[in-house]
Amino acid sequence: MSTDTEKIGRADYPHFLTIPTRWMDNDIYGHVNNVVYYSYFDTVINAYLIHAGGLDIHAAAIIGVCAESACRYRAPFAFPQNVEAGLRVGHLGRRAVRYEIGLFAPGAPEAAADGHFVHVFVERASMKAVPIPEEIRAALEPLKPAG
Amino acid sequence: MSTDTEKIGRADYPHFLTIPTRWMDNDIYGHVNNVVYYSYFDTVINAYLIHAGGLDIHAAAIIGVCAESACRYRAPFAFPQNVEAGLRVGHLGRRAVRYEIGLFAPGAPEAAADGHFVHVFVERASMKAVPIPEEIRAALEPLKPAG
Amino acid sequence: MSTDTEKIGRADYPHFLTIPTRWMDNDIYGHVNNVVYYSYFDTVINAYLIHAGGLDIHAAAIIGVCAESACRYRAPFAFPQNVEAGLRVGHLGRRAVRYEIGLFAPGAPEAAADGHFVHVFVERASMKAVPIPEEIRAALEPLKPAG
Amino acid sequence: MSTDTEKIGRADYPHFLTIPTRWMDNDIYGHVNNVVYYSYFDTVINAYLIHAGGLDIHAAAIIGVCAESACRYRAPFAFPQNVEAGLRVGHLGRRAVRYEIGLFAPGAPEAAADGHFVHVFVERASMKAVPIPEEIRAALEPLKPAG
Repeated sequence: MSTDTEKIGRADYPHFLTIPTRWMDNDIYGHVNNVVYYSYFDTVINAYLIHAGGLDIHAAAIIGVCAESACRYRAPFAFPQNVEAGLRVGHLGRRAVRYEIGLFAPGAPEAAADGHFVHVFVERASMKAVPIPEEIRAALEPLKPAG
Repeated sequence: MSTDTEKIGRADYPHFLTIPTRWMDNDIYGHVNNVVYYSYFDTVINAYLIHAGGLDIHAAAIIGVCAESACRYRAPFAFPQNVEAGLRVGHLGRRAVRYEIGLFAPGAPEAAADGHFVHVFVERASMKAVPIPEEIRAALEPLKPAG
Repeated sequence: MSTDTEKIGRADYPHFLTIPTRWMDNDIYGHVNNVVYYSYFDTVINAYLIHAGGLDIHAAAIIGVCAESACRYRAPFAFPQNVEAGLRVGHLGRRAVRYEIGLFAPGAPEAAADGHFVHVFVERASMKAVPIPEEIRAALEPLKPAG
Repeated sequence: MSTDTEKIGRADYPHFLTIPTRWMDNDIYGHVNNVVYYSYFDTVINAYLIHAGGLDIHAAAIIGVCAESACRYRAPFAFPQNVEAGLRVGHLGRRAVRYEIGLFAPGAPEAAADGHFVHVFVERASMKAVPIPEEIRAALEPLKPAG
């Protein structure tokens, strides 16, 4: 992962989703609460898995569960504002994938926040780890950095 | 307010805001949780007050606080999906306004949910009710149904 | 339902659950956001259905879905604070139940907020309304007002 | 920070707060959503700052803002259940503090999740970093590991 002083730009992310903030995202200090950033993370990730990877969150026998997540907060967001969530795949293993996410204010060249999120794929009934389904793997491949 | 069997259509609402659902809006039953509908309500309302009425939620001396809200749930929403939130003003008093909100699936002629929300305007420091500020009143007038 | 000026006391509710507020319950105005009150409502209701009525939210073939909810806000809550949520049954029909909820500050004789919530019971797979399961009905009976 | 295979026990945390889960904490997969863990983190942290450190979240001129957070998920939580949140201070700098948090199921010897959270203290008006106020520093000192 990038160091604390590294700039994270839009070119680092091949996929973007725009997520509008909501009134209740703001906390008592007038900015989007730190917790809410993670809801932007799992929204951009799961929307991608559903739309590009065919994940059926209602009935799929194999699902992704979060094993680890992290976020660094560099500049605040606030309601009302759009958040542009960039997504890439940092590591694609046999049973797990590490997503890397950058959150950008509209038009801003550098991320206001960036983080990662690890999905381990499990059999829904037993919660045992299993290989990433092929359709999902095929959708994740194009999100890996070139080279 | 309309009765339970009345159909609520898009023409009933002069203002609309599109609000995408988020992953965590879904509850264990696979649909948007009943609580989250109210976050759509206060998002469409406050976004309108800020953009059309000049409300400064960080510094305004007079703010709107919720005195009452209600929702009827007719059909479910789920992630991923857009919610089209319609807004009108049912009653505009001296110190309070009653908003009426309809939530529509994209393209659907009838509301999947509808409800109301009453803002009482108060002096922020004392929480005492005060007249609705003129700039906000002027923004709310056009949301009243035509005579 | 009681009128706006009626006082709602603790004796009106046969069952109570204490719900601590959370940091992010506070909104930019420094009080618990109006939306969050409804999460207290469905927490006291579903905890009761699970503990007293044997509802299995993971596997039950019949579940309760929210058809209507409402809340009147009389006095604010804030983090950190406990909310004491009182629950009673206002109407127990064949397929639906109307809960009435009062939210109290610790030690306060009158509710800071009160509202209602209607559950319609449905077959989970088809979402068709069905009679309230007997075990749940038996648990709800004692929450009806005497007389 | 501890490695992935290290066990995190209760003795690692000098301060605990019990946080009951809520109905809407559960996501479509039937467990507490990954995002919600962070609301447990900032609840145990801010409750401690308020109660032990005298932080006035409504009026304080100096506040803590989150610069970084992370969580590892080892075992699920679900509603209804209590979460016992353990808190310690991993590093106490001049302007920033790193909290480390362990979330335990009642009676469980090992954490179901653990993570960290960095607060940078800033002047509320300017958002410029400033030294940690003395009363807060004094409250944080006892949360540092012995030796």
